[in-house]
Amino acid sequence: MTTTSHRPVRIVATDGPGQPDRTPALDDLYRGFEAESLIPLWTEIGDLMPPQPRSRALPHAWRWRDLLPLARRAGDLVPVGRGGERRAIALANPGLGGAPYATPTLWAAIQYLGPREDAPVHRHTQNAFRFVVEGEGVWTVVDGDPVAMRRGDFLLTPGWRFHGHHNRSDAPMAWLDGLDIPFVHLTESAFFEFGPDAVADRGTPARSRSERLWAHPGIAPVSLAGRPTSSSPIAAYRWEFTDRALRDQLELADDGHPGVLGPGHAAVRFTNPTTGGDVMPTIRAEVHRLRPGTRTRTRREVGSSVYQVFSGAGSVRVGDREWTVERGDLFVVPSWQPLTVASETGVDLFRFSDTPIFESLHQHRQHVGDDPEGAGR
Amino acid sequence: MTTTSHRPVRIVATDGPGQPDRTPALDDLYRGFEAESLIPLWTEIGDLMPPQPRSRALPHAWRWRDLLPLARRAGDLVPVGRGGERRAIALANPGLGGAPYATPTLWAAIQYLGPREDAPVHRHTQNAFRFVVEGEGVWTVVDGDPVAMRRGDFLLTPGWRFHGHHNRSDAPMAWLDGLDIPFVHLTESAFFEFGPDAVADRGTPARSRSERLWAHPGIAPVSLAGRPTSSSPIAAYRWEFTDRALRDQLELADDGHPGVLGPGHAAVRFTNPTTGGDVMPTIRAEVHRLRPGTRTRTRREVGSSVYQVFSGAGSVRVGDREWTVERGDLFVVPSWQPLTVASETGVDLFRFSDTPIFESLHQHRQHVGDDPEGAGR
Amino acid sequence: MTTTSHRPVRIVATDGPGQPDRTPALDDLYRGFEAESLIPLWTEIGDLMPPQPRSRALPHAWRWRDLLPLARRAGDLVPVGRGGERRAIALANPGLGGAPYATPTLWAAIQYLGPREDAPVHRHTQNAFRFVVEGEGVWTVVDGDPVAMRRGDFLLTPGWRFHGHHNRSDAPMAWLDGLDIPFVHLTESAFFEFGPDAVADRGTPARSRSERLWAHPGIAPVSLAGRPTSSSPIAAYRWEFTDRALRDQLELADDGHPGVLGPGHAAVRFTNPTTGGDVMPTIRAEVHRLRPGTRTRTRREVGSSVYQVFSGAGSVRVGDREWTVERGDLFVVPSWQPLTVASETGVDLFRFSDTPIFESLHQHRQHVGDDPEGAGR
Amino acid sequence: MTTTSHRPVRIVATDGPGQPDRTPALDDLYRGFEAESLIPLWTEIGDLMPPQPRSRALPHAWRWRDLLPLARRAGDLVPVGRGGERRAIALANPGLGGAPYATPTLWAAIQYLGPREDAPVHRHTQNAFRFVVEGEGVWTVVDGDPVAMRRGDFLLTPGWRFHGHHNRSDAPMAWLDGLDIPFVHLTESAFFEFGPDAVADRGTPARSRSERLWAHPGIAPVSLAGRPTSSSPIAAYRWEFTDRALRDQLELADDGHPGVLGPGHAAVRFTNPTTGGDVMPTIRAEVHRLRPGTRTRTRREVGSSVYQVFSGAGSVRVGDREWTVERGDLFVVPSWQPLTVASETGVDLFRFSDTPIFESLHQHRQHVGDDPEGAGR
Repeated sequence: MTTTSHRPVRIVATDGPGQPDRTPALDDLYRGFEAESLIPLWTEIGDLMPPQPRSRALPHAWRWRDLLPLARRAGDLVPVGRGGERRAIALANPGLGGAPYATPTLWAAIQYLGPREDAPVHRHTQNAFRFVVEGEGVWTVVDGDPVAMRRGDFLLTPGWRFHGHHNRSDAPMAWLDGLDIPFVHLTESAFFEFGPDAVADRGTPARSRSERLWAHPGIAPVSLAGRPTSSSPIAAYRWEFTDRALRDQLELADDGHPGVLGPGHAAVRFTNPTTGGDVMPTIRAEVHRLRPGTRTRTRREVGSSVYQVFSGAGSVRVGDREWTVERGDLFVVPSWQPLTVASETGVDLFRFSDTPIFESLHQHRQHVGDDPEGAGR
Repeated sequence: MTTTSHRPVRIVATDGPGQPDRTPALDDLYRGFEAESLIPLWTEIGDLMPPQPRSRALPHAWRWRDLLPLARRAGDLVPVGRGGERRAIALANPGLGGAPYATPTLWAAIQYLGPREDAPVHRHTQNAFRFVVEGEGVWTVVDGDPVAMRRGDFLLTPGWRFHGHHNRSDAPMAWLDGLDIPFVHLTESAFFEFGPDAVADRGTPARSRSERLWAHPGIAPVSLAGRPTSSSPIAAYRWEFTDRALRDQLELADDGHPGVLGPGHAAVRFTNPTTGGDVMPTIRAEVHRLRPGTRTRTRREVGSSVYQVFSGAGSVRVGDREWTVERGDLFVVPSWQPLTVASETGVDLFRFSDTPIFESLHQHRQHVGDDPEGAGR
Repeated sequence: MTTTSHRPVRIVATDGPGQPDRTPALDDLYRGFEAESLIPLWTEIGDLMPPQPRSRALPHAWRWRDLLPLARRAGDLVPVGRGGERRAIALANPGLGGAPYATPTLWAAIQYLGPREDAPVHRHTQNAFRFVVEGEGVWTVVDGDPVAMRRGDFLLTPGWRFHGHHNRSDAPMAWLDGLDIPFVHLTESAFFEFGPDAVADRGTPARSRSERLWAHPGIAPVSLAGRPTSSSPIAAYRWEFTDRALRDQLELADDGHPGVLGPGHAAVRFTNPTTGGDVMPTIRAEVHRLRPGTRTRTRREVGSSVYQVFSGAGSVRVGDREWTVERGDLFVVPSWQPLTVASETGVDLFRFSDTPIFESLHQHRQHVGDDPEGAGR
Repeated sequence: MTTTSHRPVRIVATDGPGQPDRTPALDDLYRGFEAESLIPLWTEIGDLMPPQPRSRALPHAWRWRDLLPLARRAGDLVPVGRGGERRAIALANPGLGGAPYATPTLWAAIQYLGPREDAPVHRHTQNAFRFVVEGEGVWTVVDGDPVAMRRGDFLLTPGWRFHGHHNRSDAPMAWLDGLDIPFVHLTESAFFEFGPDAVADRGTPARSRSERLWAHPGIAPVSLAGRPTSSSPIAAYRWEFTDRALRDQLELADDGHPGVLGPGHAAVRFTNPTTGGDVMPTIRAEVHRLRPGTRTRTRREVGSSVYQVFSGAGSVRVGDREWTVERGDLFVVPSWQPLTVASETGVDLFRFSDTPIFESLHQHRQHVGDDPEGAGR
């Protein structure tokens, strides 16, 4: 993957509008630049300043039926313990030069924990979540609070919280991990610390303490209210609530009322109840439900997304790629690539993206509609 | 520089704690991963999740006495016009693999405009500023407002504003350009648009319209007040005000009052008067003044900085590198590298950094003091 | 109640430290002031600038057993219709000179609607809520959305939303209305508008449309997310969620975990899910549960509160007053008056206050503990 | 002035739409309400909920030529010392029942300090400012920082800062004090504390320490930057800057550029450089300049203002009142009363208002134009 490279500066003269004549004097100048670790803008501007985002990442899909057997074999061959830390297998976007990145900013991996197995406690500044497409029996313990993982649940481990996992069942479990590892790596802001080797609280409550305090609609504990936190205090967003919110939206539409994102297209966002904003400073997470026979409008957006099919099936078009996807399948939408999803039989999609980065830094743009050019702000 | 790379995924097994035994079965598993564009965390975690930031960028210095002659020769050989857009020569950090980046997030370049020369109008989502270490006679025209450039001035071109330059004097002029080009490139959020070929308003006012509206201490026009803007509406921060603010701080310290950043060390930050925050969403800009005989405390910070000596001279230590610097010289401080500056004769330093990115995303940390280990949050 | 008064200015000379000698010349000066509509600070400062808040409002309690029969008789004698608008009977604090104000900023009234009766549609800038201590069968229709009212529910009508009520049952219903009428009256910011005479949507859904969109824990509709609103979009906070959140807090305490406000004292606040802040800009609303055998710590706070007993019974001390209260009873806590509540058998208390006003304007202070003097910031 | 009143509750039956028939039974009901400290909404709603704000305050003007002689006589007769605290003479709006309030929320007073006289140190939660229409020689010492007072200066004493004054000249000085005393009194949030009897720092610097740190355009000290404060850290906004900003606006208009509030009408607002918002949480302060021959558009606004003529003269229309005003004269604009100002010869007006209260609490509305009805949000 990306490593420190001491490749020397090399300037490649180009032709085209605004470029200097290629003379020996120019060549001499460029060699002078190289000797002083300098590079002109005029040879690079086409790459650095394109008319609109041109992602190095490629639209790509990974199949659950391919991923899961590999994860199982890793379960046999690869220990989980201090040093390796996690049996997590990352989606490596084929456009990103061999780096273990789903997109230039986002990490997506299948994590696999065997029966009765533990993953050791650590913490890092990277923000993390888990989404469970199938299985149960694992508790992730976040700052000492055991959080049950079950199909459909969305679980948070915001930056710098100690966390480990333990599988209390006799079956293995595999789930999706999402993090901002590439973004933190590129911006060089990562801190990491080991915790105690053993998970301290091996309790197996149905609801975490965080949920008992915070997972009530519009209700905050007075002892903690009025103090916004940078990430959500809710460790688990349970499927029963997500599903009900999606159903409610579609029923409202049936009754003629607004709320859905488009015809036949319900969508909910997981939020931080102390701010109303995204669950973590760098990651947005949503679930989209398409009714049978629905096709979304084409959407382009600054920043990248990763989707996982939670249930049902559909066909997805990203840029010039198109796939049929079904339960567990994952695909990525690079920056500013147009996305359309359609489903004959209905589909539920989990989505996460780096949008909060762009909204916070006032770099966000999106364009919805079928104009192939996209649009300005 | 960085281009889209279709280098296939390759997994390199490593030894060490938590790593699986290297068996044919493991090898087979890894080949299976590669075939599916997958990469394990456990072979990459040491690079991806270091105990503290380990920058690929190197501490490095560039000398004004080397830069300026190269810029002059570029003035002879390289036209400024549509396509190349700007005669700007970027500092290419030797650790960044040949990319024209001063740090992983920041661009720093010397821009050079010949006598009576123009640079064409364009706009881009990248945020830009200029800092003038010497010379005058150029006006940068930002959204139609001509802004004089003079020694010591700090000038803004926030994202998506049309801007061009024109040199009204018979002398060339060279200055420092700072932008967030690498950050925007890595996060793939760049938009760019050409403007009219000719700079429309060729006026040469001493103060821009933006200054006449906004550059009054603590005073806003009622017609625009109460509406925060993402970047500062002040196009030029004039040296006379910066210098006075620095002198005032040192005089306050002489009178026994707080205000300086450290003993003998005054420092001011350029701010957005509509919010009190940084001038642009991704860039912080400051001027630091060290009195003769001053040595700063050692400081480590998440994110990177570029410094330029405005006047005087001093000695700088960044990590394990040390230089003597003087007027016009530039140096970079990579993420989490310890920085100390000392001056026998006094020095004024212009500094810009990517700190607002980390503060907005709750990833910022700093450590001040002589503890070599740095510290946690 | 308060009316425009043209009482002429009259200055009453006082004795005491810092007061001028009472001479004919002084008398002459004071008559001169009066002639020019002027009043000195020095004769008024003791009243205007006390060492700590000295409320004109008195601690006072109203008994449900007294209120309800009066409301019923009003049901017989007083129509509900255009002009009078509502059959609401306000608590008039005995310290406030005959004004219909529970405290200097808060309005609290019993509203009574007979069987099959309607209250006409209007809107006003005053923020309003309803809290139901008993009964059901009424729907309040807020901007066209019918909201069922049931025991324990807390229902919002933020400023400038059209709203009317209709009773669909054969029984009358009485509930608590809370508004910021006195605050809006004193600051002279009231607007009012009649709506259509008849309630448009006479549907009787169990859940309002607002709940179907927004009353899911930590979940927002994507179509509306990311746009903070000044008041909560949730029209009804249902008792089942409030009760569960209170039970959860007490169970967490039983398990040795934090969350309660004090020993045996659970407390939840209703919040705006788009901001994490209070439900409306001027009103805070909470429910407090004291376990049997609990006594709260003494608390003083800038601003005033109104409490209603929802269930159980307890003894309340406010300043030098003390009452035993039971279901439906109401009492007020004026600014900076110390409050203690105790219960042998357990009690649930609904509370609303004007705290957001003071927090927004940086005037809030509170003091918890048994120090009779209170404390500074 | 307003004192605690134990006037019993009295209900006055009214006639009109929606009112009950006046029968003995109704009379009996009302007597029952009175006995229980209850008041119906239906008899009060016309006063409490008017279609638009109906201020009890009256449009009123005070003449400097009347105020100043009275202040001088007070200088002879009234000491300044502990207990009386200040020789301040408040404008008492004739509509406010004899209270020393310029408007329901704002206090405005002439303060007068004799030659070589001191005013003792105290602090209070009320926010205060001073505006100097003539004279100099007094320093106000705010938390130990001596702040010179000169013609045209606007000086801050935000809540809970210790402050005293001392006159270092042989001439008396009179100035305008503005505070939120009525608002704080009505909302019962006042705290007050005596400081040491003597002003500690009797220095007479031309610029305060606060100005040396903060009164530079768009520039903040790094040691304090990035930490918003609820009030501005600038203790003095000097006339030279205010005047220049006003001149700049008018010159921009001459050049065909935007910036003025209306034709011939420049206006600047004093702001908190740490937030870009108003100088203090409850008070907005502005200076307006009308060129000769200018008439403003009619403006109505929620909340009240006090104006003082700084120089020049003009004619003012507030509601149905009209005055000719000149240097030093003061007038008030009650909530939602239409205001028009015209000047044949040019006029500079200082203005302060309670607008931040309404903006913070989402109760603000304004209407600009000649429609006599005003308008909705």
